[in-house]
Amino acid sequence: MTTGDAAAELQAEGATSREACAALDARDPLAPLRDRFLLPPGVVYLDGNSLGPVSIGAQGRLHAAVTQEWGRDLIRSWNTAGWIDLPERVGAKIATLIGARPHEVLVDDSTSVNLFKLALAAVSARGGRGRVVTEQGNFPTDLYVLQGLARLCPEVEVLTVPRGNLARALADGAALVVLTHVHYKSGEMYDLAATTRLAHEAGALMLWDLSHSVGAVPLDLNGAAADLAVGCTYKYLNGGPGAPAFLYVREGLQRELVSPMCGWMGHAQPFELADLYDAAPDLRRFRCGTPPVLGLSALDGALEVYDDVEVPALRAKAVELATLFRQLVAERCADPDLRLGSPADAAACGNHVVYAHPRGYEIVQALIARGVIGDFRAPNLMRFGFAPLYLRRVDIWDAVDALADVLAKRSYLQDEYARRAAVT
Amino acid sequence: MTTGDAAAELQAEGATSREACAALDARDPLAPLRDRFLLPPGVVYLDGNSLGPVSIGAQGRLHAAVTQEWGRDLIRSWNTAGWIDLPERVGAKIATLIGARPHEVLVDDSTSVNLFKLALAAVSARGGRGRVVTEQGNFPTDLYVLQGLARLCPEVEVLTVPRGNLARALADGAALVVLTHVHYKSGEMYDLAATTRLAHEAGALMLWDLSHSVGAVPLDLNGAAADLAVGCTYKYLNGGPGAPAFLYVREGLQRELVSPMCGWMGHAQPFELADLYDAAPDLRRFRCGTPPVLGLSALDGALEVYDDVEVPALRAKAVELATLFRQLVAERCADPDLRLGSPADAAACGNHVVYAHPRGYEIVQALIARGVIGDFRAPNLMRFGFAPLYLRRVDIWDAVDALADVLAKRSYLQDEYARRAAVT
Repeated sequence: MTTGDAAAELQAEGATSREACAALDARDPLAPLRDRFLLPPGVVYLDGNSLGPVSIGAQGRLHAAVTQEWGRDLIRSWNTAGWIDLPERVGAKIATLIGARPHEVLVDDSTSVNLFKLALAAVSARGGRGRVVTEQGNFPTDLYVLQGLARLCPEVEVLTVPRGNLARALADGAALVVLTHVHYKSGEMYDLAATTRLAHEAGALMLWDLSHSVGAVPLDLNGAAADLAVGCTYKYLNGGPGAPAFLYVREGLQRELVSPMCGWMGHAQPFELADLYDAAPDLRRFRCGTPPVLGLSALDGALEVYDDVEVPALRAKAVELATLFRQLVAERCADPDLRLGSPADAAACGNHVVYAHPRGYEIVQALIARGVIGDFRAPNLMRFGFAPLYLRRVDIWDAVDALADVLAKRSYLQDEYARRAAVT
Repeated sequence: MTTGDAAAELQAEGATSREACAALDARDPLAPLRDRFLLPPGVVYLDGNSLGPVSIGAQGRLHAAVTQEWGRDLIRSWNTAGWIDLPERVGAKIATLIGARPHEVLVDDSTSVNLFKLALAAVSARGGRGRVVTEQGNFPTDLYVLQGLARLCPEVEVLTVPRGNLARALADGAALVVLTHVHYKSGEMYDLAATTRLAHEAGALMLWDLSHSVGAVPLDLNGAAADLAVGCTYKYLNGGPGAPAFLYVREGLQRELVSPMCGWMGHAQPFELADLYDAAPDLRRFRCGTPPVLGLSALDGALEVYDDVEVPALRAKAVELATLFRQLVAERCADPDLRLGSPADAAACGNHVVYAHPRGYEIVQALIARGVIGDFRAPNLMRFGFAPLYLRRVDIWDAVDALADVLAKRSYLQDEYARRAAVT
């Protein structure tokens, strides 16, 4: 039975019992993947879109990196454990998830730093001038990096437009378009190929932020002829808090673009220790300093699970979970102040959904106090993610159960826990 | 008995027996610190200046970060475990080691990335023009970052001069001076205060790379009125392979300089998720992306040992170990091709020494095969570091024993292991 059939059956049944959810879970071919994760008891974790949980793979790989590679083999591990090319090796694994070739992806630094490297390299390749187009309400770091870039390059103009005005903004041409594929708040998803085409028609390079997409939705960067991309690995990829990020540069651009941050690891021959920089002839030129081996190792282990499952199957299950959540909320959470903040169709979104509520912050805290972990995004959004590697339909049932109860009892009004300031 | 007395006694005795070394070790007040480290058996580790070993503190702290913070508390740890301000908290610990105030240091990104941030911020504060002076043979990443910066800012001129010509090069004025305090090859050490004064007299800001100094030699950035600094934490600080690096900006400059890499974590109010960048009013503006929590945690644990020992005491022991090594090599390693590549006085160097030998690469490999781990630096340098937290005088004895034997037997000529390519 495919998950698509399961969704249909769910709908036919009315899907209105915890038992029906459990029965579907029992038949889910992806269900055993949950055992790869070390989830705390009593928690329904709907925040894997912000920080994925620790897996046996990540923990084991990190333990080996600390005790054997660092502890026993010490400095020799740069060779014997291949630390030196971990950024490329882990990158090649991510390449399979985003429709790129192995030598087009590397993992190093943070998403913000990688965005800076690629955006500035792209603009520099256009003579350090031109128009950079991005979207209002894009994830803050994407906007801030471009604003910093404009201060650095006085002939660069950053145009930040509402999504609906993108095509019009591009009519006058551009040097670079920077967009986040799945919106971090609404979950709304761009058509990767069509939007890339739009950027190319404007004469621009297309840079995608795939932070909320990678490992969650099928991606085909090569198929879309996308030029550049970056993305986060601690969300759906479960790489661990602050795990190093990836960057993608399509093969044909790798010799044309030069990283503005020239570090020793981007040199063609780093260990010749020459005084003059000579950029590596390939993607390695976008490396900079010594790679973060511990973070890379945890991520490497976290990616093991993707050896045994394809992204399309994960996506189908995630859409089913999201659809179930939306349906149960609609049926069971009668609150005049509660409003869906995502597009109506779960298939038009990434694997999360948001609801607006004037007391969103307190409600999220009340849910957390009951073990249902989502997150809050200013000013009033409650965000729930559906990571299909470890979530079950009964989790969705229990989460909505808790939400319905919190809303009905208005218990968030008294909840002392809700007074605490929280980073969400 | 102080280590100074020990050195004197050593010299008086002729220091020419393993037993004499062992006797001194037995009386060393710092000797118990060795038990904090998980050193592999049969290894004499003279490469802690490149990658420090794992400590019980680092391993324990990382384990807690993975199992309790990430594993059990998940996303909540951004608040409950204080992940969000780990860069500042770990920075404050490093501040005590470098003569800075707690709010003047943060830990994030790599040394190369931090160099880029600070150098470009410094040059931008001078209108994006002027002369940047650095040293020939400086660590490659320091040179490469500046070369990249010059490409980015056409009105910046990078002047790379031999150490002896520094004063003359500064006579015409400069915007920024970038130097490494302890040279990564020779170990030669700048007078921090005098050189900073020289830079200031030229009208320049002074940026120190403290990668080979921090935790090894006493440093007083505030006392020297140094403006900016960066440094590596995986050498003498034992933070782990590719551990995040630190940066220092003196208080008076923190509002004047703006990081060119504007990421969400450098925003005054990151969680307001505003579209417009508003730099934090303090050092946090030099943060960029989400901090590397696992690497920061390991480093945090590694720094525990500095709660129980002062850098001057460590430095005194390191100088004693270095002096012993140099003395034993002079006495026992008669090889016409072997030449000291460091200044003659160990006290004029950081905590490592280099010897040049035309077969340096093979000799280092032959030593490694015998469990004596130093490293090789192109073109012909054998580098040995004396990390005083865990090295004993008997280790020095054993290391020179092995070196003398390798040289006498010329065994490196046949050593098959030496044929392997190695990153050193």
